[in-house]
Amino acid sequence: MDNLTGLRKQINLINNEILKLLNKRAALVQKITMLKNETGTDYYDPMREAEMLSDILNQNKGPLPDELVKEVFSSIFHTALNYMGISNERKLLVGTESEVNLPKLNEMFDIDADIPVVIAGPCAVENFEYLDQVAKALKDNGVKLIRAGAYKPRTSPYDFQGLKEEGLKILHEVSNKYKLYSVTEVVDTRDVYLVQKYADVLQIGARNMQNFELLKEVGLTNKPIILKRGMSASINELIYAAEYIALQGNRNIILCERGIRTFETKTRNTLDISSIPIIKRETHLPIIVDLSHSLGRKDIVNQLAKAVLAAGADGIMVEVHPKPELALSDSKQQLNIDEFRGMLSTIGY
Amino acid sequence: MDNLTGLRKQINLINNEILKLLNKRAALVQKITMLKNETGTDYYDPMREAEMLSDILNQNKGPLPDELVKEVFSSIFHTALNYMGISNERKLLVGTESEVNLPKLNEMFDIDADIPVVIAGPCAVENFEYLDQVAKALKDNGVKLIRAGAYKPRTSPYDFQGLKEEGLKILHEVSNKYKLYSVTEVVDTRDVYLVQKYADVLQIGARNMQNFELLKEVGLTNKPIILKRGMSASINELIYAAEYIALQGNRNIILCERGIRTFETKTRNTLDISSIPIIKRETHLPIIVDLSHSLGRKDIVNQLAKAVLAAGADGIMVEVHPKPELALSDSKQQLNIDEFRGMLSTIGY
Amino acid sequence: MDNLTGLRKQINLINNEILKLLNKRAALVQKITMLKNETGTDYYDPMREAEMLSDILNQNKGPLPDELVKEVFSSIFHTALNYMGISNERKLLVGTESEVNLPKLNEMFDIDADIPVVIAGPCAVENFEYLDQVAKALKDNGVKLIRAGAYKPRTSPYDFQGLKEEGLKILHEVSNKYKLYSVTEVVDTRDVYLVQKYADVLQIGARNMQNFELLKEVGLTNKPIILKRGMSASINELIYAAEYIALQGNRNIILCERGIRTFETKTRNTLDISSIPIIKRETHLPIIVDLSHSLGRKDIVNQLAKAVLAAGADGIMVEVHPKPELALSDSKQQLNIDEFRGMLSTIGY
Amino acid sequence: MDNLTGLRKQINLINNEILKLLNKRAALVQKITMLKNETGTDYYDPMREAEMLSDILNQNKGPLPDELVKEVFSSIFHTALNYMGISNERKLLVGTESEVNLPKLNEMFDIDADIPVVIAGPCAVENFEYLDQVAKALKDNGVKLIRAGAYKPRTSPYDFQGLKEEGLKILHEVSNKYKLYSVTEVVDTRDVYLVQKYADVLQIGARNMQNFELLKEVGLTNKPIILKRGMSASINELIYAAEYIALQGNRNIILCERGIRTFETKTRNTLDISSIPIIKRETHLPIIVDLSHSLGRKDIVNQLAKAVLAAGADGIMVEVHPKPELALSDSKQQLNIDEFRGMLSTIGY
Repeated sequence: MDNLTGLRKQINLINNEILKLLNKRAALVQKITMLKNETGTDYYDPMREAEMLSDILNQNKGPLPDELVKEVFSSIFHTALNYMGISNERKLLVGTESEVNLPKLNEMFDIDADIPVVIAGPCAVENFEYLDQVAKALKDNGVKLIRAGAYKPRTSPYDFQGLKEEGLKILHEVSNKYKLYSVTEVVDTRDVYLVQKYADVLQIGARNMQNFELLKEVGLTNKPIILKRGMSASINELIYAAEYIALQGNRNIILCERGIRTFETKTRNTLDISSIPIIKRETHLPIIVDLSHSLGRKDIVNQLAKAVLAAGADGIMVEVHPKPELALSDSKQQLNIDEFRGMLSTIGY
Repeated sequence: MDNLTGLRKQINLINNEILKLLNKRAALVQKITMLKNETGTDYYDPMREAEMLSDILNQNKGPLPDELVKEVFSSIFHTALNYMGISNERKLLVGTESEVNLPKLNEMFDIDADIPVVIAGPCAVENFEYLDQVAKALKDNGVKLIRAGAYKPRTSPYDFQGLKEEGLKILHEVSNKYKLYSVTEVVDTRDVYLVQKYADVLQIGARNMQNFELLKEVGLTNKPIILKRGMSASINELIYAAEYIALQGNRNIILCERGIRTFETKTRNTLDISSIPIIKRETHLPIIVDLSHSLGRKDIVNQLAKAVLAAGADGIMVEVHPKPELALSDSKQQLNIDEFRGMLSTIGY
Repeated sequence: MDNLTGLRKQINLINNEILKLLNKRAALVQKITMLKNETGTDYYDPMREAEMLSDILNQNKGPLPDELVKEVFSSIFHTALNYMGISNERKLLVGTESEVNLPKLNEMFDIDADIPVVIAGPCAVENFEYLDQVAKALKDNGVKLIRAGAYKPRTSPYDFQGLKEEGLKILHEVSNKYKLYSVTEVVDTRDVYLVQKYADVLQIGARNMQNFELLKEVGLTNKPIILKRGMSASINELIYAAEYIALQGNRNIILCERGIRTFETKTRNTLDISSIPIIKRETHLPIIVDLSHSLGRKDIVNQLAKAVLAAGADGIMVEVHPKPELALSDSKQQLNIDEFRGMLSTIGY
Repeated sequence: MDNLTGLRKQINLINNEILKLLNKRAALVQKITMLKNETGTDYYDPMREAEMLSDILNQNKGPLPDELVKEVFSSIFHTALNYMGISNERKLLVGTESEVNLPKLNEMFDIDADIPVVIAGPCAVENFEYLDQVAKALKDNGVKLIRAGAYKPRTSPYDFQGLKEEGLKILHEVSNKYKLYSVTEVVDTRDVYLVQKYADVLQIGARNMQNFELLKEVGLTNKPIILKRGMSASINELIYAAEYIALQGNRNIILCERGIRTFETKTRNTLDISSIPIIKRETHLPIIVDLSHSLGRKDIVNQLAKAVLAAGADGIMVEVHPKPELALSDSKQQLNIDEFRGMLSTIGY
């Protein structure tokens, strides 16, 4: 086995030579980057990479075949860019490296930075009285945003579809009365103008997260937009959907995690809480969590409210109804007013 | 253990008495149903069920608690309805029990009933020449429907979004030239009028399967609609989405299975072939399969084409491009013209 | 309609007769249960049920078809068992209604009730030095449980499979030296005896959650068992797996949420944090969360540690390695010792 | 820009030096491999890699940080292994490029190459009479393999767990009587010896697909092994599980697709039919489909049987029971004998 030991020593020596060259190379790349900073040319240059690779492969006399040489040098190029903090992916407007100014959630609604934003209200606007009772409870408890659907996207065309413009009017009247910000969903490009006349915040539902025409249309307004993650949307797709809005000029974007579809049936959807810190790392966007739609049950709302805030969420959305058992939709997941108060107290309201 | 044997015998006797009563009861329910048929009253009467249950619980002296008595009688009521072929669910227009006339796929396009319908074409309209080459290949091989996107919903706003109206015009010109039916996607309620002017068949993409306003809008046209299953939509949700279209008057509906999101990464989505016979059992709607988008690769298209037709699909949709490696989108999944011919021959064209 | 009224009256009478028979039947079942209590025979007897059903179907002369008769009697049998509290669902040993005493997590390891239990250590035992360094860091920071794998289940047979008994010995020596509880995985029924000789806590990995023979085998020991949720196991299945252990006598069971498989790729698995309060509602078992395996990345461990504890988890498990970049497995997810200290401080250690 | 040109030239020179060293290194690795071939030691040595990396990082003086150095060297190590054909990915025993001879499905059971292999039988061995009736029906219809479970892995410990050795004896007796090959599941390493005494084919269930110790144990027998895909196992993981068996010497391996877990509830699992041609591309292994467990319903078995065979499956497995409504497990998915005959005729038996 002496022979093996000898061969290994030689490999060790080569490893160290390569190491030195890699560091020398890195120092040169650093100089080039500084030069480019001065001259303002682009950092990442795929053509230059292709040229270098072509040169290298021309020089290759083996025994390593070209494809393996290419593999190592791709890694070397990638490392060099990484070292200089240069990504070869596009900079998104909503991304962490963007210089666009994206407002924080509390700034949008003039709320104290150290308390979580709470958005609450019934699933749908059903009538003035119910909404008025909820609004009063919100006001009494220091909650500033009321949500209620006037346009309800429903799986079956035979289910209650919302009061539409009549619902918008009730929401507008009630939110004015109690000086609350109103939040409501918009489901059709043709309705955006109407809905924004009545509501302070527009919501894009999970089913419409990749309805790109709708995203562009709300991107032309200046209202804050709550963009819900689609039921099977990846985090990347959610971020790109936000970019559609931002590209049109509207930077008041609030992402909303609301669970993804899995095989587990104890909750309606599986809340992907890991998405919260990931989105914080990859974007400057605020993110809230819709607890009611994701869970589809209310007996564990308090624990999850605490969990998502601990994970870094900027706020939560929950459904509150004065008489959940009589609600026209989603009656099992709506808190009554007492339960809502209990939830608020667990998160320090 | 004599005692156990004795008790068991008594239980057996009671079982048999209950059995007799259940059958006697079934005979009575049968008579009532016949009466109702004559008088034209509704079969399923939830109020009558609630009354019976209330009576029964009033009579209950135990030892079985009310909730368990209720459980058994719910089963008895359910069984009785089942026996009479009465479902307590609503009859959908598109459902198997509906009396609405839904056209078959071959009838819509005047195609022989015993060959599968093939819809083919490039992912997107890119220019006249490419589309013309594909159309010629379709014509030469007896394929009657050409597909190509003019509006391309893309995850990133920075990706190619389609030629829009210019693309529609090219599609129109080419399909006219070769006397093919043209198929193209519509993504916004405001575009439906324009798109239907140029195209013969409107497609609703997977991302818009629950864009209910768009469904309603195409439901007002008289064009055949290809409705693609959402990436995480259940079969039930797909059927209800079709019902949204049918309710507006348009019954020329073609469902399209295109795979669902799972953890498996060897295919872009997991083709749910079991959905084909299930949809055949539950609806009268034709169903096709989009092989290219579901698989995201072309090396297994032939095998899957055979499989979905064997499972009962009425047709298939595949992407064909004269030079897939140069395509602006989805280049890996598009067949070239030779590969397309090969695929056709494996399914007996 | 007199006729209808008459028929309905007859049905009401039959309903009442059935009711009486059901109660009579329940009284007999009660007697049998008492008999069985005395003789110590098993309560639930699927063979007896099959026999009764067979007898009943033999007697059935219609008009109800066999399958509907079977449906009603399944409900009757189920009700009878329920009435006697024999149901699997209502009275698991590990369930909330059980009277079995299940120890709390802190009690098992003599840890203060108001701080979360932390289990930490390298993915695998690699050598004495590494493990010694980790153990020292744990000791210095008040952590009482060290984990390290000696048997490593790996997707590929060509990957590092663990040091086996040699690894157990190192773990034993190190944990003794620092007076830590040692935690290690067991993967084969034949190894249980050996592993428990060396380790204080046995872990059942995700892939073995439904390896029922292994569950039974560890159920015969008196060591605490960490039972990890399978990658696609429902909460119900996890609870039943725990019941397999408890039934053998071992009640020192610790459930471990570690993420489920979904389409999302930013984390290795999707942590199902909602499972924590659900398990607290349905069982008396402690539950911890394995952050490292679920996330597969370490940059968001701190946020998730806070989140799962806020949701009610009793503890967390994380991977710590003195030189993660040199680790033989899972190097990307292991914290180095400084990062580990940082994580501890965010959860109040 | 002279400066830039100059720096780039220097980088080019370094690239070439690195290239030379990589090739020199490759030549040394080649020598080591030849040495190892002679001495019979293992090729791939993760410990040696860890040592080299440790050495290199000790030498590293920057400016490249350790983690980037590690990235490049991982690529270099990987390339070197690849070059020697040592990679796990490129040359599995069960892979397409392997030179190992893997028997075809029909060869294993002396069945005509042009008819699909059918494996049928009840979910579990319940008694002699039932199994005898099924076996007779198989024999009469030209089916050569009978399946029946003696060890039943069940979610709940309170469900019927199989007749164990008594069941094996019945299966053995019946299969002998009708000259059928018997198939049955083994769930514990300790049972392998016993089960193989009675049965001709051993089955590894979905829950045990990554019970690697069990895989190794059946790999030591010479019986054909049916390896079922785990409920959330990727195709890659299934192939690696087969490799565990093949590595022990047993090459009589039959893969079995049986559906994966998704959100869709109309079928118990979602049959991933695309896996069939993919596995045919990546391995030389036969693959069958378990229709009963994947679908969990029998009304669509015929259509799916045709579909999976059209996709290239070598055979199917279905459950048949003389009286499915009396079966102790999975009664809804088992065909009765008439339905079974109907299914056979749809696939050309």
